[in-house]
Amino acid sequence: MIDTTHPLDRALALSPLAPDRFAGATDPAWANMVGPYGGITAAALLQAALVHPARLGDPVALTANFAAPVADGPFEIEARAVRTNRATQHWTMAMTQAATAADGPVATATAVFGVRRPSWAAQEEHVPEMPAFETVPPAQGPVPIEWPRRYAMRFVRGEWVDFDAPATGAENSESLLWLRDAPARPLDFASLAAMCDVFYPRVFRRLHRFVPAGTISITVHFHAGADALAEHGDAPVIARAHGLRYVGGFYDQRAELWDPAGRLLATSQQSVYFKG
Amino acid sequence: MIDTTHPLDRALALSPLAPDRFAGATDPAWANMVGPYGGITAAALLQAALVHPARLGDPVALTANFAAPVADGPFEIEARAVRTNRATQHWTMAMTQAATAADGPVATATAVFGVRRPSWAAQEEHVPEMPAFETVPPAQGPVPIEWPRRYAMRFVRGEWVDFDAPATGAENSESLLWLRDAPARPLDFASLAAMCDVFYPRVFRRLHRFVPAGTISITVHFHAGADALAEHGDAPVIARAHGLRYVGGFYDQRAELWDPAGRLLATSQQSVYFKG
Repeated sequence: MIDTTHPLDRALALSPLAPDRFAGATDPAWANMVGPYGGITAAALLQAALVHPARLGDPVALTANFAAPVADGPFEIEARAVRTNRATQHWTMAMTQAATAADGPVATATAVFGVRRPSWAAQEEHVPEMPAFETVPPAQGPVPIEWPRRYAMRFVRGEWVDFDAPATGAENSESLLWLRDAPARPLDFASLAAMCDVFYPRVFRRLHRFVPAGTISITVHFHAGADALAEHGDAPVIARAHGLRYVGGFYDQRAELWDPAGRLLATSQQSVYFKG
Repeated sequence: MIDTTHPLDRALALSPLAPDRFAGATDPAWANMVGPYGGITAAALLQAALVHPARLGDPVALTANFAAPVADGPFEIEARAVRTNRATQHWTMAMTQAATAADGPVATATAVFGVRRPSWAAQEEHVPEMPAFETVPPAQGPVPIEWPRRYAMRFVRGEWVDFDAPATGAENSESLLWLRDAPARPLDFASLAAMCDVFYPRVFRRLHRFVPAGTISITVHFHAGADALAEHGDAPVIARAHGLRYVGGFYDQRAELWDPAGRLLATSQQSVYFKG
């Protein structure tokens, strides 16, 4: 029998174990250099709230903290709705793995869900000028890493750094690309959260060499509601990221994701540890 | 006896109750329209980790979620170091109040602490051109609210909205100001966290009218280490914020805080609920 499940759905499959507890497992399709891609871990933490029977509304804000390497294999997620109001709900999540449970969670998260309703609307963060998706050649990710193959990436600026090419001395770490799940899949809150971590470490671009680097905390603020996501379907998104300050072995990075019509779908900020 | 404690230190005074549990109380000096200023609540949550005996390193990332109005009076904060690594430590915090404890926490938070060490350093987010602090007139906050009096604010752009003046039809919500505790106080991690929430709701600027609005989640990424803060002392900081997208009754806002030499001290992103 051939498993025709989309790799994202496979990585996000959670089984209820007990009230507020879910079982899942890492998927080799999402392997990073060590353990799984951080974006899929953040998405799994969100997924536990999304599939929880107590869920109210849709995600508005998510913060995932990466406490330790996630080992390949099974994990458990505890997801608790710690406060439910009329129109908002507050979640705390923690991912543990049996072998390291005594040391604490491998990841923690909080999320705020909310009931969206019609309001005054405006956008200040404008979408950059983009060539049509079809006209931008797809980029090959670095060969030895698996997870970038789960995305179609078409870079307009700031493509994967070729460490073998001469350094450009770039003083700006911006990447701008067309981005879509590969194979294409209708956008939802979990896939949107995963996409916010898609940008390779900005410090690679600035130093033009590989250095150990890993996200320690990522925050995603969602602008698209369920209706907007349904309307979006499996269209590509416009994705941009840049670093702000690198100091003391940490840096931060902001990201924005727009739909093809230029509507902001999500904004993100992450803090990254690096050695270099 | 006259209490000469700085109002910020008074609001952040926590007494150990039990392992991982601290008692505190709101302070009238920080009153907002309902309950205390959100920035002081975020700072109190961080403070519980800062004063915790298990603390390792200094704050790198903080997310505080505002789950319910904080009532004037006593509160408790539970702060747990859920994972301690060699150079990073992961915290979860929750603030509860006796009268509403059955409904869950009034605020939750996560923080990542880290040991900063020398590394390659660079900055991409440049400080805007600023007139000297002394040359910018201080702004009066809206009279009926107490907490803005805890800050010296000198606006270069985007000052407090005067709802009685004609609407400007601004399509940009940016505020840029010199900012300092009032009275002046040496900058530390808690005061820096509090400052990240200092910007009045961006939606006031865009709609030019008062609408109910409240932060539901704020994330702060710290760039200044303990040495940089000690060097900074009680100098003013340069603070900027703008909204990104307003839709479905929520919007997000980003903020940057620099020292007078233009070094980024902290970056922040918050998600705000509004009715309008």
